Amino acid sequence: MDFLAKLKAAARTRDSWLCVGLDPIVERLPDCLPRSSAGVTTFCHRIIESTAPHACAFKPNVAFFEALGRDAFFVLEDVVSSVPEDIPVILDAKRGDIGSTAHLYARSYFEKLGVDAVTLSPYLGWDAIEPFFSYPGKTVFVLCLTSNASAAEIQMLLCGGEPLYVRVARLVQSRNPSAGLVVGGTRPEQIGVIREICPESPFLIPGIGAQGGDLEQSVRLGSWKTGGGALINASRAILYASKGGDFAEAAGSVAAGLRAEIARAASAFQRRP
Amino acid sequence: MDFLAKLKAAARTRDSWLCVGLDPIVERLPDCLPRSSAGVTTFCHRIIESTAPHACAFKPNVAFFEALGRDAFFVLEDVVSSVPEDIPVILDAKRGDIGSTAHLYARSYFEKLGVDAVTLSPYLGWDAIEPFFSYPGKTVFVLCLTSNASAAEIQMLLCGGEPLYVRVARLVQSRNPSAGLVVGGTRPEQIGVIREICPESPFLIPGIGAQGGDLEQSVRLGSWKTGGGALINASRAILYASKGGDFAEAAGSVAAGLRAEIARAASAFQRRP
Repeated sequence: MDFLAKLKAAARTRDSWLCVGLDPIVERLPDCLPRSSAGVTTFCHRIIESTAPHACAFKPNVAFFEALGRDAFFVLEDVVSSVPEDIPVILDAKRGDIGSTAHLYARSYFEKLGVDAVTLSPYLGWDAIEPFFSYPGKTVFVLCLTSNASAAEIQMLLCGGEPLYVRVARLVQSRNPSAGLVVGGTRPEQIGVIREICPESPFLIPGIGAQGGDLEQSVRLGSWKTGGGALINASRAILYASKGGDFAEAAGSVAAGLRAEIARAASAFQRRP
Repeated sequence: MDFLAKLKAAARTRDSWLCVGLDPIVERLPDCLPRSSAGVTTFCHRIIESTAPHACAFKPNVAFFEALGRDAFFVLEDVVSSVPEDIPVILDAKRGDIGSTAHLYARSYFEKLGVDAVTLSPYLGWDAIEPFFSYPGKTVFVLCLTSNASAAEIQMLLCGGEPLYVRVARLVQSRNPSAGLVVGGTRPEQIGVIREICPESPFLIPGIGAQGGDLEQSVRLGSWKTGGGALINASRAILYASKGGDFAEAAGSVAAGLRAEIARAASAFQRRP
């Protein structure tokens, strides 16, 4: 099954366009868990279990696992394999290297780790992205416009009258119109611009919550014409909803609330003429 | 000691501006070594031992270690710690993530792994780079102009009359003039342009050898006015110089030859008026 089909099926089954970001930090684990790699593993398992009914995707960020040092790969492998089979896993790696090296990264993530998609940087151009498409059913999400404050320093530079992020969106559209894009929720006006250029791409939209992005606008401007396709990512708001023994239930409640908020935003704009 | 001082001392001691890239591939190990993580470890140890007299830096590329899966961190840790103490290690990671995540990467690489520098992508702007400077004595090499064919698709787009890579060079120069830049040896004309903008930066110059870059031009156009500062990287040409039991000696000979070639190129242009 190809990535978009899997994503759409997961979104339909759970009536959700929420992506749960897995950014575990040892120091922020609930008090009931050991501050260790084992604690991180249990934490992620319980979060996945309690939020899976409300999520269409999970997005582990490699940096948070690499922070565990020697245990990094074991924990990441264990966490990825504990995601229910029908929910896609997007590895947030933001990699970008020359073609021969990109092949190695693709093999590590798609063959060994078994994720469904990976985030990539566009700075090296398409030959750093192409190798990831040699795995059937897998895809990439190319960084287009990110949610951080400095994003404008590079991504909004005008290149021939258009900002760089628009050129990146056009590059993706011209090479693989069903590939995904990362589009920060902190800049909703731009989400609409990118959606015009890439009508079929799934959008991964981080920056809602802790970073101050606008959920309603992101859903309205980022969705496909037919609805859906705008994966609203939330990480910290869900993971750290409670420091107590009820952390998993609290995470589930926040995820359920976000799912409902996304659905309300979607139906509000779909009801308009 | 700060990075530049350490680099200059290593270059002076060994009279070399050669950087040895550590890109080990299990399938390409010499026949005398087991095709396993242990084989990769031994291979890297022997390569480091035989080339250290001719190198001012080592550059392990994370992708090649991640390809080892569960053993990735162990092997990388072991290899990094086997580099002689006075030779800087530049981790080729090409990372780039928002500030809070960048902090985690910096801690993993500088505190846990103990490397001296890391390569970073500029696509997210300066707040993705800044956290790496909170470690005294450590530095970064920002991707400016890469050696791959598609680099031009993004890096050479004209932004306000200047190519994007020039804007990246100006950004680095304005924020931290002693930070490093990655400048591909496949585009020597551009190396000179970037050197004008960033007179103090060390340049990491990949793409010589297998990728067809021009060593002499790279040294001539990439060096500091006072000489030095252009780290010519070679990986495959050194690592895979022989498949036989003499692989380490062969690697040492190629490294010695490259060191001499770099020195010749440097003295040729320094002799000019």
